[in-house]
Amino acid sequence: MRERESQIVLGLDPDPMALWPSLDAPAAGPPPRRAAAAVTAHCRALIDAAGIACVAVKPQLARFEALGAPGWEALQTVVGYARSAGLLVIADCKRGDIDVTARAYATALMGTLETPFGPVAGLGVDMATVNPLMGGDAIAPFLQTARASGSAVLLLVRTSNPGAADVEDLELAGGDLVWERIAVLAEELGRSHVDGSGFSDVGAVVGATAPEHLRRARQLMPRSVFLLPGVGAQGGRVEDLAPAFVPGRAGGLIAVSRSIAKAHEAADGDPASAARAEAERLRELAWRISG
Amino acid sequence: MRERESQIVLGLDPDPMALWPSLDAPAAGPPPRRAAAAVTAHCRALIDAAGIACVAVKPQLARFEALGAPGWEALQTVVGYARSAGLLVIADCKRGDIDVTARAYATALMGTLETPFGPVAGLGVDMATVNPLMGGDAIAPFLQTARASGSAVLLLVRTSNPGAADVEDLELAGGDLVWERIAVLAEELGRSHVDGSGFSDVGAVVGATAPEHLRRARQLMPRSVFLLPGVGAQGGRVEDLAPAFVPGRAGGLIAVSRSIAKAHEAADGDPASAARAEAERLRELAWRISG
Repeated sequence: MRERESQIVLGLDPDPMALWPSLDAPAAGPPPRRAAAAVTAHCRALIDAAGIACVAVKPQLARFEALGAPGWEALQTVVGYARSAGLLVIADCKRGDIDVTARAYATALMGTLETPFGPVAGLGVDMATVNPLMGGDAIAPFLQTARASGSAVLLLVRTSNPGAADVEDLELAGGDLVWERIAVLAEELGRSHVDGSGFSDVGAVVGATAPEHLRRARQLMPRSVFLLPGVGAQGGRVEDLAPAFVPGRAGGLIAVSRSIAKAHEAADGDPASAARAEAERLRELAWRISG
Repeated sequence: MRERESQIVLGLDPDPMALWPSLDAPAAGPPPRRAAAAVTAHCRALIDAAGIACVAVKPQLARFEALGAPGWEALQTVVGYARSAGLLVIADCKRGDIDVTARAYATALMGTLETPFGPVAGLGVDMATVNPLMGGDAIAPFLQTARASGSAVLLLVRTSNPGAADVEDLELAGGDLVWERIAVLAEELGRSHVDGSGFSDVGAVVGATAPEHLRRARQLMPRSVFLLPGVGAQGGRVEDLAPAFVPGRAGGLIAVSRSIAKAHEAADGDPASAARAEAERLRELAWRISG
């Protein structure tokens, strides 16, 4: 973050029907393979264009899964490409399960699976989003795997969608809200693993659409890195994110997808130049308000 | 269910280090491919052995993802094999996200993705488990996709793990628990889509480990099919599941993994015969208590 002076996370959310127009389509092969090749090319081009202004990429696993096995291969390729470009990789997968199943998910993301045929390496991401609904024993296997590989988890705490009111915002008998209780859980799980920068390896997803939640979340989780989705298309503004950065510039990772990938629809220029300019604008703005 | 007189769901949870010993390992190739081939052979053998006593299979997606792209290919093969054996397929994936991302997950499971290169078919499963933490707008895209393909969703309501107490069991200001509120949400979402059997297309995952929750869940969701995990290794007993079947024999789907796949460790005989015998024993027991 310091090196790049950036807290911007480049969302990789490729819709095969909305890839950058300049990219050549693969000439032949079955539809999933061709679509996966086109998606890979799109993500690489996006990283080439805007990666330099970003600290991480955030592939949305759903988009790759919808292309089946070739999609998973594309995901592996894109993760490797991002890492070789010096970017951290945040798997946005929102996995949540227990016991051996949770361990298998975590292994797929940030571990290595032992098999009788030799080890099978997972995606090797640096962070992954985890759904905490099933409780502490659903989070523990992800955290153990992350700690064994020097990675981190990002718990869904207060998401950026209107439906967050249905469950996350329910008021508990003690007066606090469900998401606040999850925030306390995140803080407890991370407390013992705080690094030299003052941050733990249990981060939190906190929507950028409601700055009042952000202040409260920062009170409850003083040592967590916040992944902040919702800037741009969903209405969140970088200017309102200052509470995330109270403990330091590394306190917030600002996830941006459409505003960068589709910058050319609102501005002049080719997709790559527009994406680069928008990522650079957001980078500069975030660095300024977080200082 | 009527045809097979079975409510048993065969869990497909293949650990490459614990596959049935009689299966030949593929002779060559990179580890992920060989492991995926062995996993496919194991799942096929399990379906051949025990499928006849079951109404559905439930692949645990985590296990396949841990093998990368070859794992996803194995998953597609196993889903197709189960369907050709006359079994329903329940994807145990516990996905949960919003908007276009939720739609992409749902498409990967039960839809078809349009691409400029032609349509890409998803897994084509009959049901999928969905995590409701993010609220109604996270569930809607799954439900829309399921309804367009004649499939169904199974919301996580009260899971079978001890950690369920951390979030699902929290008491709300109104006196009910978080999971009860989710149950009400499930009932509301399914109310308008009840078929001739009296059941809606919004089912619920309710752990078989706590029969007192089962009775309460049935009160709150009179029209939901319950997926009941936790029988066997986790301590749940088929004998205690009668409350699920109050509205009819189709009221419960009993998920069993280890008790069937590892039946030979506790009983005499080869893995296939032991699995068949245990699945048949559970089928007969469940059919009896549900009548």
